[in-house]
Amino acid sequence: MTTTQTAPKQNGIESGGPIRFSSRLKEGRALAQDVWSIYNAVNLPPDCLNLGQGYMNFAPPLWIREAAEEALRTVPANHYSHPKGRLRLREALKKHYEADFGRTLDAETEILVTSGANEGQYSVFVAFLEHGDEVILFEPFFDQYLPSVTFNGGVPVYVPLHPRTAGVDKPTGHDWKMDVDELRRAITPRTKMIVLNTPHNPVGKVFTRTEVEAIADIAKEFNLLVMSDEVYECLVFDGEEHVRIATLPGMWERTVTVGSAGKSFAATGWRVGWLIGPESIIKPTLAASTRIVFCSNSPLQEAAAAGLELSKAHNFFPTQTKEYAERREVLIKVFDDLGMKYTLPQGSYFVLLDISDLDIPDDYPFPESLNGRGRDFKWVFPSTRPPCSIFSPHSPRACWFMAMEIGVSSIPVSEFYCEEHRNIGEAYARFAFCKDIDTMHAAAERLKNLSKHLKKKQI
Amino acid sequence: MTTTQTAPKQNGIESGGPIRFSSRLKEGRALAQDVWSIYNAVNLPPDCLNLGQGYMNFAPPLWIREAAEEALRTVPANHYSHPKGRLRLREALKKHYEADFGRTLDAETEILVTSGANEGQYSVFVAFLEHGDEVILFEPFFDQYLPSVTFNGGVPVYVPLHPRTAGVDKPTGHDWKMDVDELRRAITPRTKMIVLNTPHNPVGKVFTRTEVEAIADIAKEFNLLVMSDEVYECLVFDGEEHVRIATLPGMWERTVTVGSAGKSFAATGWRVGWLIGPESIIKPTLAASTRIVFCSNSPLQEAAAAGLELSKAHNFFPTQTKEYAERREVLIKVFDDLGMKYTLPQGSYFVLLDISDLDIPDDYPFPESLNGRGRDFKWVFPSTRPPCSIFSPHSPRACWFMAMEIGVSSIPVSEFYCEEHRNIGEAYARFAFCKDIDTMHAAAERLKNLSKHLKKKQI
Ligand SMILES: Cc1ncc(COP(=O)(O)O)c(C=O)c1O
Ligand SMILES: Cc1ncc(COP(=O)(O)O)c(C=O)c1O
Repeated sequence: MTTTQTAPKQNGIESGGPIRFSSRLKEGRALAQDVWSIYNAVNLPPDCLNLGQGYMNFAPPLWIREAAEEALRTVPANHYSHPKGRLRLREALKKHYEADFGRTLDAETEILVTSGANEGQYSVFVAFLEHGDEVILFEPFFDQYLPSVTFNGGVPVYVPLHPRTAGVDKPTGHDWKMDVDELRRAITPRTKMIVLNTPHNPVGKVFTRTEVEAIADIAKEFNLLVMSDEVYECLVFDGEEHVRIATLPGMWERTVTVGSAGKSFAATGWRVGWLIGPESIIKPTLAASTRIVFCSNSPLQEAAAAGLELSKAHNFFPTQTKEYAERREVLIKVFDDLGMKYTLPQGSYFVLLDISDLDIPDDYPFPESLNGRGRDFKWVFPSTRPPCSIFSPHSPRACWFMAMEIGVSSIPVSEFYCEEHRNIGEAYARFAFCKDIDTMHAAAERLKNLSKHLKKKQI
Repeated sequence: MTTTQTAPKQNGIESGGPIRFSSRLKEGRALAQDVWSIYNAVNLPPDCLNLGQGYMNFAPPLWIREAAEEALRTVPANHYSHPKGRLRLREALKKHYEADFGRTLDAETEILVTSGANEGQYSVFVAFLEHGDEVILFEPFFDQYLPSVTFNGGVPVYVPLHPRTAGVDKPTGHDWKMDVDELRRAITPRTKMIVLNTPHNPVGKVFTRTEVEAIADIAKEFNLLVMSDEVYECLVFDGEEHVRIATLPGMWERTVTVGSAGKSFAATGWRVGWLIGPESIIKPTLAASTRIVFCSNSPLQEAAAAGLELSKAHNFFPTQTKEYAERREVLIKVFDDLGMKYTLPQGSYFVLLDISDLDIPDDYPFPESLNGRGRDFKWVFPSTRPPCSIFSPHSPRACWFMAMEIGVSSIPVSEFYCEEHRNIGEAYARFAFCKDIDTMHAAAERLKNLSKHLKKKQI
């Protein structure tokens, strides 16, 4: 199939040929081959260790899966749920979150279960965007935001986080700085919404209280809606404080907080997520979500409810965090040993490796699809990394090279930027550590071979 | 929460108050209290037998649920699926449908798994509608179509099926007639798409070959996309022929056919559906669905695959049809005994009872929400039933009355029409027979008491 459109309508009636698809698909990279397809198992060597995609290679805890099996043995949990979500899950979410949010939550009006965080976020855009409304996205951003905004008439406005890591010996997420003035300058009369993601994918940054307060102040000043994507809320390391913007003064009324059973319980394929916010946000979003999916699947909602209900008894979240911290340790140890720089994540399950020093042979055979991702210029690395119009496919190429030569896949961080800002991400590859410890060790073993490909050998 | 909007922006910046929701929610009844909420268990007597909502009061077959449990015990079936759907399910769909469609199906490009039929249909609208594009809906219609169209900039154009049942002793779905000239007159230069639903909810009509051919001819003449909602394809009675419009000459290229594991396997809460069509339709729809939900839940996709793979071995579909035919028999017998008229369904699991002769006391206490559904005129039943601007809440009131006095709930058919055409549905209540045989017998026992409330006593 070709994605070119047919001839225009004659007298309004199309003159045959394939039915014309909507112009909304021409925006937001909706029809472009996505990065996940290029770097998926089909294209990479079969024995490649996949640290690219952000899903686990282990199952959700047995006791939660057993709750799913139990639900399957009943009648109602095999049938439609209320579009708001099953009452048991909404009650469990209420209990789980009330202390965190420092307020009573109404399970009827302030909690909405969605088909993954993804569909919840899409529904918020459906419910709130007017044609031409601007939505502020901090770059790098979770790539689904962009088409979700443009499909619903929104206009993405990009505010990059700046990797102020030069000269920093051991950079962390905190060294990716938000420039408050830049954020303020991005506001126009059409700005409707800010999307915040903390803990952050792919940077691993947990926004500091000061940063979150600065965003909140701007949201209040300009009466903006804030979508706070906190799907990695359960994965915060090193005693870092996860600040929920909804809990800041005056912010509850304008914030919708996003959560995911997929991330919380290592069950990305269950497609259960949730939104928490005031009735004024939840009610229109429910109206949208009801039409889009009607309701989320029932048996796995029951299981997610059980997961929350029993998490304390199983000491689940602290144990899970400890396990992820161990996986993180394996990865950063090998980068430390190699003398390579990376961003130490305070949250989420991603490490950004600085690949500036990776020496990729000029004549290395790359697939066409990588060239297709921009003009095929020989890579010129800018000394500072401002937005730059020269497309340099270093990050995609480095990821491809590492997958083929080292046997470990990762994702080029340039993919998490708009075209104009791609270069900021050029120096980084994202490695996911949501894989069991044996896989992490095996990957570390292979990554040691990067030493052969560094510009200045460091070990 | 109130759904009134805040004051307009001053200098583009809103002057405080709740964040303004999108104007798209003001169309397509998106924020109105839906009929399902009014007639749900909370509002009705606790011992009311629910023949209102179209979900089963029995579980999916054990052997299919066991496949779900098996999937939960693996790692990959707990994690993200390919947005196209799991390969096993796509392969099973290919095998299942190739004979029906009379062609080879490509599991990579012509089959798309969705989060219920509902999300699949929503995704088609996202993928194909341009602002102002007109979509033809045959009334009465599955109520989700309307907001799914308007949310995506589409304009619904209504073509009613006409109940030509006057003077017919035993009307069937065939007596709800499509007027081909009326359909043709509804076409404008902005018409993009026709939504066909066969077997039909709520009429139970299985469109005849002649009718389907007439629709196909119009679709070809005006180069229209056809969405053929065939979620009740497995429930066709009395040897009736289910004609797939996609199989008519020249129609494959312009048709997307919709199916549902929920309806096929009595698993409405699993949220697994599918679309079948040419790559030119599936590819843009995949782009939409990928952004909306990313993918459908994985374990229940595996179970649906098992359902298709093993259906022959279990003689599943013929047995299921026989069971539904028995349930239908129980319901129509009591209506026959009462001497009440109804539409005998050739497909789906709904019977439309003609409630013209129901005598409802003028002073019967109805809830506010029913009055709210239109101007509260005393019901005046038109002798013929043309589109009529007088709102007459007979059907909602009759359903309420029967739920309260008889203890059996149903759904007013007027809800399946646009405001201007509601009156066509005024004479009908929809009873769902997707309930186990004991429930059907118990409901029949209660329905006998309708004899006390008929205008002219007939037994
Ligand atoms: C930042 C972020 N938000 C949302 C999601 C989507 O979560 P879910 O799988 O629950 O749809 C992801 C998944 O990778 C993510 O990284
Ligand atoms: C005609 C029709 N289409 C689609 C659907 C939605 O099916 P699903 O539950 O798979 O989303 C229904 C459900 O009642 C229906 O009646």
